[in-house]
Amino acid sequence: MLILVTNDDGINAPGIKALSLTLAALGNVAVVAPEKERSAIGHGITMHKPLRVTAVPWEKPIGQGLAINGTPADCVKLALDALLEEPPALVVSGINWGENLGTDVLYSGTVSGAIEGCINGCPSLAVSLAGETDLDFSFAARFTAQLARKIINQGLPAGTLLNLNIPCLPPEDIKGVAITRLGRRRYTNTVSRRLDPRGRAYYWLGGQKEDLDQDPATDIGAISRGMISLTPLQLDLTHYAYQKKLAAYLPCLGPGQGKE
Amino acid sequence: MLILVTNDDGINAPGIKALSLTLAALGNVAVVAPEKERSAIGHGITMHKPLRVTAVPWEKPIGQGLAINGTPADCVKLALDALLEEPPALVVSGINWGENLGTDVLYSGTVSGAIEGCINGCPSLAVSLAGETDLDFSFAARFTAQLARKIINQGLPAGTLLNLNIPCLPPEDIKGVAITRLGRRRYTNTVSRRLDPRGRAYYWLGGQKEDLDQDPATDIGAISRGMISLTPLQLDLTHYAYQKKLAAYLPCLGPGQGKE
Repeated sequence: MLILVTNDDGINAPGIKALSLTLAALGNVAVVAPEKERSAIGHGITMHKPLRVTAVPWEKPIGQGLAINGTPADCVKLALDALLEEPPALVVSGINWGENLGTDVLYSGTVSGAIEGCINGCPSLAVSLAGETDLDFSFAARFTAQLARKIINQGLPAGTLLNLNIPCLPPEDIKGVAITRLGRRRYTNTVSRRLDPRGRAYYWLGGQKEDLDQDPATDIGAISRGMISLTPLQLDLTHYAYQKKLAAYLPCLGPGQGKE
Repeated sequence: MLILVTNDDGINAPGIKALSLTLAALGNVAVVAPEKERSAIGHGITMHKPLRVTAVPWEKPIGQGLAINGTPADCVKLALDALLEEPPALVVSGINWGENLGTDVLYSGTVSGAIEGCINGCPSLAVSLAGETDLDFSFAARFTAQLARKIINQGLPAGTLLNLNIPCLPPEDIKGVAITRLGRRRYTNTVSRRLDPRGRAYYWLGGQKEDLDQDPATDIGAISRGMISLTPLQLDLTHYAYQKKLAAYLPCLGPGQGKE
């Protein structure tokens, strides 16, 4: 039984080390991860340049990891199609240094690794540790391994993946586990305009979080109350409830209207 | 009334020229687009390097476009937060050279431009021309302008964007407009393994499309029948129907179990 582990913080990040070694208690673990940090790359794939695979030493029992000059989605594609000898029973992406909550999952490289596994028919899970400094991944890795065992045994529906966020608290301070929906978050004042030493303008993206929906039923609400958040996500972005309304308010968009 | 136009084929692509000039009949148009092609970058944003803005000449009445060394999402963020003097009434991303259908919307830079507009509260639309060679964008641009007028007048619900795909056919051969859901598509044999001149392996992503769901109700099915496909998408990826089941099959994942 094989588990594929990837991330977007890069193969040298502490989260993927802790995760992979803890998951090794469940079965064989293959580590295939970006050679450097790929945060906020979204669900990118690399089509315009060659990808290279470099073996890196890894603690036993895993023995080696594979570093790729690409994105988390590239790593999963390459692993499934060219590097692994059998299909994995599970794809786990993480443990990310920092939360991936609400609308931000659309930007998340961590989640994109799990999306790529899901597209290719593998049960898939993204894991993030919600905190900023002094992160200890050991409890999060153990909790993820427990969840991984359940997913491997019970499966996930097609087109469904899980997004797990764990608060960075001492285990005894964690209030429980909540099954959540995504909250809504956006960033304000995202752009800083500056001048370079030659007086030319440049811009840097940053900004402050603004949570538009942190209801207790959301992932953002759960984490803010010290709970573990587990959100089922689906690949199908269709807004079914709006289909009929859209059809009704576009009654006369026949193609003939396009003629001059 | 201002319309923001972006794309992922880059500011020199023919689709954004045709689109922006046709939309100029509706109001003022601001063109802010990547300086080069950014296909398949997903919903990436650039956080680790500065962004530069370069003015490029544009046909009248628009007069100039702004090229950015970033992704479509970067372009929209930068435009909304730093470059535009008023919020746009509509964000349009496209017209992409080639379709953006089904599962592929998760990889699409074109769709990510519209997602970024939607996150920031603007009615947003992604437009793609389904074809591979000899693309004529004129009908697609006119049809998009008709739809744009309706969206500007009637609005879109919060968290909802539209994905429009237009078949590359003579207007008289287009069979109509279908309101669709996303089909499911994946790629097989995606990885080509090769040897470089020094005998080292490298890998190139490619692959053949495999449509897993091309029901007539899907976008893939509509385009294959010569119809225009309009799909409402939502930002919220939560799989609500699976929440209860997930809670039931994870009964004993209390945090105490994480302790050693």
